[in-house]
Amino acid sequence: MSSAPGRARDPPRYLSKAEAEAIEKELLEDYRFGRQQLIEIWGHACAMAVTKASSSSHCGHHPHPTTGIISILPWAFPLPSLPRKQPTVLVVCGPAQNGAIGLVCARHLRIFDYEPTIFYPKRSPDPLYRDFTTQCEKMDIPFLSYLPTEVQLINDAYNAVVDAVLGAEAEVGEGREPCAAILATLKHIRIPIVSLDVPSGWDVEAGSSGGISPDVLVSLSAPKECARRFLGRQHFVAGRFLPYDVQKKFELNPPEYPGTECVVALRAPRQ
Amino acid sequence: MSSAPGRARDPPRYLSKAEAEAIEKELLEDYRFGRQQLIEIWGHACAMAVTKASSSSHCGHHPHPTTGIISILPWAFPLPSLPRKQPTVLVVCGPAQNGAIGLVCARHLRIFDYEPTIFYPKRSPDPLYRDFTTQCEKMDIPFLSYLPTEVQLINDAYNAVVDAVLGAEAEVGEGREPCAAILATLKHIRIPIVSLDVPSGWDVEAGSSGGISPDVLVSLSAPKECARRFLGRQHFVAGRFLPYDVQKKFELNPPEYPGTECVVALRAPRQ
Repeated sequence: MSSAPGRARDPPRYLSKAEAEAIEKELLEDYRFGRQQLIEIWGHACAMAVTKASSSSHCGHHPHPTTGIISILPWAFPLPSLPRKQPTVLVVCGPAQNGAIGLVCARHLRIFDYEPTIFYPKRSPDPLYRDFTTQCEKMDIPFLSYLPTEVQLINDAYNAVVDAVLGAEAEVGEGREPCAAILATLKHIRIPIVSLDVPSGWDVEAGSSGGISPDVLVSLSAPKECARRFLGRQHFVAGRFLPYDVQKKFELNPPEYPGTECVVALRAPRQ
Repeated sequence: MSSAPGRARDPPRYLSKAEAEAIEKELLEDYRFGRQQLIEIWGHACAMAVTKASSSSHCGHHPHPTTGIISILPWAFPLPSLPRKQPTVLVVCGPAQNGAIGLVCARHLRIFDYEPTIFYPKRSPDPLYRDFTTQCEKMDIPFLSYLPTEVQLINDAYNAVVDAVLGAEAEVGEGREPCAAILATLKHIRIPIVSLDVPSGWDVEAGSSGGISPDVLVSLSAPKECARRFLGRQHFVAGRFLPYDVQKKFELNPPEYPGTECVVALRAPRQ
């Protein structure tokens, strides 16, 4: 239990953009968490969420009730007895922090014996992000030089896409290249999308306006307001690491994390 | 599986001091891992090992066959139905990297609802270690101002001691204060000791010569030569995060990590 007794059953707080920024500021400035440390914690938690999404109760390859497509990742933990497909995942990383979290997520997926491929078209010159990139490159995780505009090629090659293009900090850049072209492609993809923190192209508070429709959402620290508009299959929260005083101060009402889990799936939020 | 097929059943490699240093150098310089990142990964894994030691099959509070004392942590995961004792753990941190890993371990234990107390008598001026200290202080983890020389006070107050005093890098300092006094106290403690990487006071290769006798050892990245002399109850390895090429290059023969586990218990090593 990571919350005070009796509070775990309350629904979690959905954060405004200003609140999300205030929490991150408090972690960095008051608690002296490092950016490298937070990105490592979040990226690891996102990879854990991907493994949980894949090993959820929907293990029978059920087609989606309306689209007919398989809306779950068709494998559980890495096993020699995998179905015909390789456990491939495409991780699409934007230029800022959300993209760096995607890089860490890809590295942990590789450690968990998945086969991630990274598309990271606009690399940040920030030495911290360069180091996370080097870790992936040195681990022989392939980097795509371009994203196929023919979505069928993506549907055929990967089991899922991790959307680490734009996060809560996004305001500028979303309508600019290369992000606009990526989002246009992701909108037409038929394999499951796992969005990190804020589905790319969504407003942190208002949510979607004809943007992508992820199947899985992984909220970092706590859900943002836009998560109320999330209609996908599974919503995970990766906030186990938060100090109790931060949880209390921002009245987060965090979900109950079983055992030593760093992520937990929420019930679908009420609209 | 984190190793090539067929190799998981080979015993793991036990590293010399030079090999351990070469692996760390490769991670930092070639793979561009950050020190903050590695310490976070190792500290989290150590906390996970503590929870596994506590929730192992020895859950019946069996007294030790020769000493008669309860040589296991008498609680599993944090539960309202705990035995009378609070889930207290004393984390003793040395001045260098092993101590910083202990600080991270304590923070994660707190997140897992344990009640860690830290003794950190010789604080490093390194900003990185100061930040890890601040995180613990701000999370209201108590710091002892001195270690009771009357060991009965420690035996009565805590369920276990995490020994993060000296690690693989230790050569100087081990015979000097405050480490010498701490080791003298730890030698007489009757509650379980969980040592991180190298039991404090042990030589990385030769092992113990009348030093402490930990019940649990958590090897970071891979076991060191001294681990062959470890006669305690459980030996964990926290090396899941290692890139495959590092595992191969140093012929680590890593153990098989189930699912997404970051630590795994080894069988007792052959002498």
